[in-house]
Amino acid sequence: MSGRAVLPAPQPQFSLRPAAIAQRPGCRSLPSTTARAPRLVDVNRGVRCEATKEQQQPKAPVTGPTPAAPGKNGASPAAKNGASPAQASQQQQEKGPTYPDRPLTELDLMALRGRDKHRPHQLEWPQKSSWIEIAWDQFKDSAEDIGRHLNRAVKELPSTKALDKLVKGGGKDGQGLRLQSEKPVVLLLGAGWGAHSIMKVIDTDTYEVVCVSPRNYFLFTPMLPSTAVGTVEFRSLLEPVRTANPFVDYLEANCDRIDLENKVAYCTSKNAYLDGRRPKFEVPYDILVVAVGEQPATFGTPGVKEHCFFMKEIPDSVGLRQRIQQQFELAALPGTAEEDLEQVLHFVVVGGGPTGVEFAGTLSDFLREDLKKKYPELMKHVRVTLLNSAQTILNQFDSKMQQHALDNFKRVGVEVRTGVRVTEVTKDTIMLKNGEQLKYGVCVWSAGNAPRPLVQQLAEQIPEQAQFQPGGKPSKLAVDPFLRVVGARDMIAIGDCSLMVGDRLPATAQVAGQQGAYVAHMVNRGYLPLLGGLDQPPPCKPVDAAALATDNVGTMGSTLEDGEGEGAALLYYKKPFQFLNLGMLAYVGDDRALTEIMLPFTKIKLSGQFAYLVWKSVYITKQVSFRNRVLILFDWLKAQVFGRDLSNF
Amino acid sequence: MSGRAVLPAPQPQFSLRPAAIAQRPGCRSLPSTTARAPRLVDVNRGVRCEATKEQQQPKAPVTGPTPAAPGKNGASPAAKNGASPAQASQQQQEKGPTYPDRPLTELDLMALRGRDKHRPHQLEWPQKSSWIEIAWDQFKDSAEDIGRHLNRAVKELPSTKALDKLVKGGGKDGQGLRLQSEKPVVLLLGAGWGAHSIMKVIDTDTYEVVCVSPRNYFLFTPMLPSTAVGTVEFRSLLEPVRTANPFVDYLEANCDRIDLENKVAYCTSKNAYLDGRRPKFEVPYDILVVAVGEQPATFGTPGVKEHCFFMKEIPDSVGLRQRIQQQFELAALPGTAEEDLEQVLHFVVVGGGPTGVEFAGTLSDFLREDLKKKYPELMKHVRVTLLNSAQTILNQFDSKMQQHALDNFKRVGVEVRTGVRVTEVTKDTIMLKNGEQLKYGVCVWSAGNAPRPLVQQLAEQIPEQAQFQPGGKPSKLAVDPFLRVVGARDMIAIGDCSLMVGDRLPATAQVAGQQGAYVAHMVNRGYLPLLGGLDQPPPCKPVDAAALATDNVGTMGSTLEDGEGEGAALLYYKKPFQFLNLGMLAYVGDDRALTEIMLPFTKIKLSGQFAYLVWKSVYITKQVSFRNRVLILFDWLKAQVFGRDLSNF
Repeated sequence: MSGRAVLPAPQPQFSLRPAAIAQRPGCRSLPSTTARAPRLVDVNRGVRCEATKEQQQPKAPVTGPTPAAPGKNGASPAAKNGASPAQASQQQQEKGPTYPDRPLTELDLMALRGRDKHRPHQLEWPQKSSWIEIAWDQFKDSAEDIGRHLNRAVKELPSTKALDKLVKGGGKDGQGLRLQSEKPVVLLLGAGWGAHSIMKVIDTDTYEVVCVSPRNYFLFTPMLPSTAVGTVEFRSLLEPVRTANPFVDYLEANCDRIDLENKVAYCTSKNAYLDGRRPKFEVPYDILVVAVGEQPATFGTPGVKEHCFFMKEIPDSVGLRQRIQQQFELAALPGTAEEDLEQVLHFVVVGGGPTGVEFAGTLSDFLREDLKKKYPELMKHVRVTLLNSAQTILNQFDSKMQQHALDNFKRVGVEVRTGVRVTEVTKDTIMLKNGEQLKYGVCVWSAGNAPRPLVQQLAEQIPEQAQFQPGGKPSKLAVDPFLRVVGARDMIAIGDCSLMVGDRLPATAQVAGQQGAYVAHMVNRGYLPLLGGLDQPPPCKPVDAAALATDNVGTMGSTLEDGEGEGAALLYYKKPFQFLNLGMLAYVGDDRALTEIMLPFTKIKLSGQFAYLVWKSVYITKQVSFRNRVLILFDWLKAQVFGRDLSNF
Repeated sequence: MSGRAVLPAPQPQFSLRPAAIAQRPGCRSLPSTTARAPRLVDVNRGVRCEATKEQQQPKAPVTGPTPAAPGKNGASPAAKNGASPAQASQQQQEKGPTYPDRPLTELDLMALRGRDKHRPHQLEWPQKSSWIEIAWDQFKDSAEDIGRHLNRAVKELPSTKALDKLVKGGGKDGQGLRLQSEKPVVLLLGAGWGAHSIMKVIDTDTYEVVCVSPRNYFLFTPMLPSTAVGTVEFRSLLEPVRTANPFVDYLEANCDRIDLENKVAYCTSKNAYLDGRRPKFEVPYDILVVAVGEQPATFGTPGVKEHCFFMKEIPDSVGLRQRIQQQFELAALPGTAEEDLEQVLHFVVVGGGPTGVEFAGTLSDFLREDLKKKYPELMKHVRVTLLNSAQTILNQFDSKMQQHALDNFKRVGVEVRTGVRVTEVTKDTIMLKNGEQLKYGVCVWSAGNAPRPLVQQLAEQIPEQAQFQPGGKPSKLAVDPFLRVVGARDMIAIGDCSLMVGDRLPATAQVAGQQGAYVAHMVNRGYLPLLGGLDQPPPCKPVDAAALATDNVGTMGSTLEDGEGEGAALLYYKKPFQFLNLGMLAYVGDDRALTEIMLPFTKIKLSGQFAYLVWKSVYITKQVSFRNRVLILFDWLKAQVFGRDLSNF
């Protein structure tokens, strides 16, 4: 048995050291057969079956994209395999103990031994809270974190990190490297809004937090369009992971696949040695958080990947800024033919969502405020066109706000064409569905997002996910209200790559950020996600039964005293994730914005220059650090006083 | 005859419109035969021959790299062709008028008609001025420019620029485009210290100034090493050409070759259209300034271009910054083998000049001040090695200062190895001449500079340049004390790509900047460079003879009244370029620098932390704009308060 530790109990008298577990009578590892469902799952499923059909349906109203209804009599999707869960369980037991060499958590043991026979037969989901209740709850959570932040600020970084907690030969071929930790491992995949939010809050004293991402920084995505024209510099929007929380072990790598049964992530370094070797390693985890987001969607349109700029990551924006400048230098050359000028200076934005609209608006500012001064002779040839396949832009806003955006675009000279579908992009032409051909100089593609390969792979790997994938194509990880991936064990998904069953949340930074904080608080409080699913009991943790009397820990469902005299009980997490909608913002150019601010009993809709002030205030406030606030304020001032930089590199 | 204009007279009553010239009796174009020397050259050479051998030699002491002595009896190198200049001239005349279709300047005409028969028989070169005299002179020149700067600040940019002054079919194949101007054209090749300095000063009301460079910004090169680690941001060191002087016609292109006879530069756009076409165009010029600088020298060492980072341009520094960060992320991966760690974190700098030394110093700061905080576990594996082929580093400084630098490097952990020659760089190993092999992670190559192809081409094209090229290999353009390229007409070379015959100047930003200002002032005052060479009369301009009486224009040599009653005379420029050495600076890491400040009667040598304060003050003062000063000060403050950014993109 490897020396890997398990989740600690929040109560000191409740030992969870692996050695202690291994020595207990009856300690068994989970079966590692081709059948997916480990024993713990079946036990819980048994519980689930006790709930009546009538009780269950309203609890999990499914509004996700064309999901199949949950098993009619409450049986899990595993039943499709032809065997009932109970049968499957029995088959496994008959096969004998082909268990992997990994320790069980105390919770596993309790479940296996059937200790929690009084587990909630009837899950009483709390009522949807009001805006004020959610806000108050989030505020209390944040207040809890202050001490942790202060502690982190004064604490010194250990001079030995993950590096010293490794063993060789962890992989199947004996080549891989395996991260070993004394503390339970929380593995974060991604460095975006969700993962960053977790990193800021999670208790790195209790957990070994490992972040695997090919990007070593957090990016404040809503302001990315500003960087493409130089209103804000690239680095002002970033916070390196190692700065966000130096106690997180950051690894610059891609996660290739996850072994769900053995709870191991297989990763490959983003960077290679000079001789071409690219290190591979494995990270076994206790809790996995998938927060990898999405990638730009091309909808299979040919030529988009080759010829368009996306507006998703910093390198996209770096390339686009260069390209805009290059187009102007190209057009400024002597004797450029009229038709070349028209083409070179035609900027096309595909997509009428917030990103596309903000970029079109910002580009028009750049043209009017800076380029016009340096290339006055070219201005009559410049065109900005926004193509949108839907009939309206900014669908999130109401029609009055949409009209305001359209009026503003008309005024600043951005041509908006709705109901236009791009069928192909060649090296110099955009083909529309109506047969029209648009010559373009630069094409920015921000028409939506598509799943990342890892998410597709995971959704395929977990049979219970199939019913939630629209059209049978794996796209997002369906999660239950505790953000646990349905059908997977100790696995959480947040942000754009997740889809909450029963409550369709927008794929925004706001949601991802709140989900991250939610997960971090849940984990900080010692709750184990266990198996995800609408028919599964909530995350729980073992506690000293005596502590329950103090009532400072909330429970959902019943608890029970332990029959073996240890005074242990299972405590269930009673707080599912609830999204606090704070509003929406969109910049539309010429110092005008649309804002929709949510307040306890009303919402305020603004458009125009005052809304832009609100836009600015909110984005400055929402920056993830004081450093970013200072840098962005300076950038704004700089652009105002000196103009945007035109250097082309 | 094309509608191209010629240099205007500074006096209004002296018309130089091409039409006026063409209508004059006796107006003839220059011969365009294979023989290089146009008639004007021969006339001047005739002058030159009158000077005695004894008078000539001390005037032009040649100390350049192994140049041949000038023709013994004062005959020009053209005499090598087998015919004396006079004979050559006669031969051309007998051939008849195979003249190109371009107008002559008034000066050409005067020379041809033999008007200036009283031209200086004996060139009295002024004595070398004292430091104070040069400083005072430069100060007066700068004072002259204030009005021009103010005027430029309030004047509006014309909405039609070079674009409207073009004709098609100027090229031999009828395809090219030709820039046409109403004003005399000053063509600047380059956007570095020399060209930028000219742009800031030159009178764009009188001249059509065209800048051709593949880089649309000026770069404050001495601080480039700071950007590679993020002490200063890239854009803080740059000033776009269009911001430096919006009245300069900037063209983002490479100059491929120069037709010296017809005074036309052939250029190719740096950027291509989407269909792959890359515009080509021609710029005919009246005065050509070659300020293209140099490119990094590899000395033919195999593998340097493929595997090393140079430290010359912004993209070099961008790539290097990314790479340093990547190396640390690579090393921070779990379970990296000891030997891989040693290799990945071995930073090698080749070259002990100011650039190499400053980079090594700055890198050690980055390691100590920032990376150590984030990667404490890696620090024991990090090595910085400075390789130098000479026995001493920073040869410009005296041995005491050199020792200070060495001591400092020892203290901050930079290993300096002198007398070490690199024979090859493979993808992961640096081969030394003594057979040693150094495994490296990043190799920065700053071992010196080599000529750019255009400069080599020009040096080969001009026969008179041959004697000044060391080892017969074309390397730099030899210039006379007026910075005119020896043997070429109306062509000036400044900065690193030039070599002043008789006064070897260091290849520094300081020299290039002063040379640029010198050339701009000369041109602003209406002097035409004419043919360059030590045996040629100085630049001159036609003036109203009456104006000479006021004596507010300096002369060198005698002038004469015009016999034809026009009251015209030739005025020679009496001020050759003199370099004002202000001192030297080098940063050596850990807030310590070496400085050598020149004062009127002494020089102050400083080393250590106070010298670093001087270094900072000088570089802030020397920034080319208020904007750059503000940005750099903010960057310094930012790095101090928040640390250098570790985001990797």
